[in-house]
Amino acid sequence: MEQPDVSELTPPQRTLMGPGPSDVHPRVLRAMSTPLVGHLDPAFVDIMDEVQELLRYTFQTDNDWTIPVSGTGSASMETAFANLTEPGDTVLVPGNGYFGERMASMVRRAGGEPVFVDAPWGEPLDPDDVAVAFDRHQPDLFGFVHAETSTGVLQPDVPELTTIAHEHDALVVADCVTSLGGVALRVDEWDVDVAYSGPQKCLSCPPGASPLTLSDAAVERVFDRETPVRSWYLDLTELGGYWGEERTYHHTAPITNVYALREALRLVAEEGIEQRWERHERVAGALRAGVESMGLELEPEPECWLPSLNAVRLPENVDDSAVIDHLLSVYDIEVASGLGDLAGEILRIGCMGYSARPTNVVSLLAALGDALEAQHVDVDARAGVGAAMERL
Amino acid sequence: MEQPDVSELTPPQRTLMGPGPSDVHPRVLRAMSTPLVGHLDPAFVDIMDEVQELLRYTFQTDNDWTIPVSGTGSASMETAFANLTEPGDTVLVPGNGYFGERMASMVRRAGGEPVFVDAPWGEPLDPDDVAVAFDRHQPDLFGFVHAETSTGVLQPDVPELTTIAHEHDALVVADCVTSLGGVALRVDEWDVDVAYSGPQKCLSCPPGASPLTLSDAAVERVFDRETPVRSWYLDLTELGGYWGEERTYHHTAPITNVYALREALRLVAEEGIEQRWERHERVAGALRAGVESMGLELEPEPECWLPSLNAVRLPENVDDSAVIDHLLSVYDIEVASGLGDLAGEILRIGCMGYSARPTNVVSLLAALGDALEAQHVDVDARAGVGAAMERL
Repeated sequence: MEQPDVSELTPPQRTLMGPGPSDVHPRVLRAMSTPLVGHLDPAFVDIMDEVQELLRYTFQTDNDWTIPVSGTGSASMETAFANLTEPGDTVLVPGNGYFGERMASMVRRAGGEPVFVDAPWGEPLDPDDVAVAFDRHQPDLFGFVHAETSTGVLQPDVPELTTIAHEHDALVVADCVTSLGGVALRVDEWDVDVAYSGPQKCLSCPPGASPLTLSDAAVERVFDRETPVRSWYLDLTELGGYWGEERTYHHTAPITNVYALREALRLVAEEGIEQRWERHERVAGALRAGVESMGLELEPEPECWLPSLNAVRLPENVDDSAVIDHLLSVYDIEVASGLGDLAGEILRIGCMGYSARPTNVVSLLAALGDALEAQHVDVDARAGVGAAMERL
Repeated sequence: MEQPDVSELTPPQRTLMGPGPSDVHPRVLRAMSTPLVGHLDPAFVDIMDEVQELLRYTFQTDNDWTIPVSGTGSASMETAFANLTEPGDTVLVPGNGYFGERMASMVRRAGGEPVFVDAPWGEPLDPDDVAVAFDRHQPDLFGFVHAETSTGVLQPDVPELTTIAHEHDALVVADCVTSLGGVALRVDEWDVDVAYSGPQKCLSCPPGASPLTLSDAAVERVFDRETPVRSWYLDLTELGGYWGEERTYHHTAPITNVYALREALRLVAEEGIEQRWERHERVAGALRAGVESMGLELEPEPECWLPSLNAVRLPENVDDSAVIDHLLSVYDIEVASGLGDLAGEILRIGCMGYSARPTNVVSLLAALGDALEAQHVDVDARAGVGAAMERL
């Protein structure tokens, strides 16, 4: 076979304002070029401890079982559902976005039966509907999405939801992929049993090692399983030996991704988690004000606005992919289209982590104005930029 | 909660001569500090194509389905077994090392029944035993380990094994974790249906995106499944949309790990795959000669010697962990102990990828001599270094 001739890696320099990945902080990029130690090296064990401590702070939890899962966000998601679901279990999942359907698929593969609590795409779950669904289905587990990446909707009333679940002896799994490190999230105070996330959203870390935390009650349920978890790779009862006291070998950890996550979480700790939530609200608030001043609408109601992911409704008859291509090809800015019920109707504009900076907001607004004008939409980009600057 | 105070990342500078990870080439480390593009960016699609082409060359295959799986080596391993095993299937796996037992666990979780073909730990499978096991169990799938990381044994006679399997209408899965890029492996010529590997062994790339290749027959079996794969994350029928023609979203790829793998595979192509196999044989041959000149024995017979992982039998009454600690704490060199049946009896000394360099061999031999002398073993380290240098 002939040797392939592949040139040096020179990807374009993008500004990542889509639903993730976000721009990675230069310190995190540098951490990734650190030479490796072995995954069982005593020095790596210390690094594991530090990452766990930093993750606990970021999740606002004291949970012992707080680890990075060796895969991208969907791996931490499936770790949660595959470990907490046994064959025959009933699991309540949301019908108001893309990721509820993914939860259902994972539950089915684990041998469980998903049942749905519905709300329109672009709206949060109503606690009353959740209570009705609990009375009707008596689920063993309840999964909800704290920050729905497909619709830009933040689920308010989390403590209300967890209270309903616990009154019905169910455990709660929260999808925090787009909230961790960017939007107020208090795992312990809100009584969330299991929360998972990805590193490439508000933590601004490359994907590959994904945060997961489990309460003692959740860990107990996992270790009391009657059947083995259906994935060896994601089995927490096996992983516990590696991340727990014993430090026994299970699989090779993605060492460099753990280095990167450590540095990304150090940046969270240096900024302060509450200050970081405030920054996201301020910078995304400027984006929101700018978009609205241009005569465009944000999809969700203000009380469930998700600063880290802004769903901007497109004017009628605008081709979303033409706008997205214009932003990428002319300005090197990445944003994304809608998914599912909102496909073709919205743009998803991220404002996450290191991407959540004033310079990105003003350049995005100007570029968006240009892209819409190219589609013959009459928008006032100057007014948008001006309104944003007033907030920054 | 108080903000954790974690200092800058400064791991010790090790020389990695254990069973993996190996030392990462500086060019690969630099590639990892490249800013990210999105996982659906047209530029990333081109990068995916290049990685696939480079992987095909390294596996010596024309298989369309040649991809990096988004996890460490055990994820590509489970992707193979979880996709190729349906509930009720019989899967023949080897009993001569640690990783056959892992295969069995994965098969059970997928709903299949593992049956074993045995050989002592430290010896390869005998094709006659494999034929007998096939006649007896009529398995649907046969997994074997091309390069057994736990024992340092190379499985010879691969074409004989695949012929037996195909005569019985079974497909063959080869564990190439410690052979890919370091030891002769010809997937197409040897008629292997599925081969998987990890990047952190002979490819000298950080773990996180793991090579997998499937023949058309294997892909057909996956797409003809009657039941869904029991892991959503590892389901190839879903992943096919992302890595195939359509490029649809499944999960976020570990972008930086794909960058790193691309650079590591470029180094393979630049060196030439056969030249790379020869280098491993030459450099590990020097290590072998050195060890033997010091009066120590390599575990496997010469015909199943695995250059990338050398199982050195320790003299009686030597504490393996004291030797390992001495090498790490005094010389910053990582080697590993034996596993399973060989625990306490061998040292596992890797000679993989960028770690397979003359300078590492001579320093390891000198350091090993010192560590053994500290254990009151009378060895001639000078003779070992001298014998190695003659071969280098």
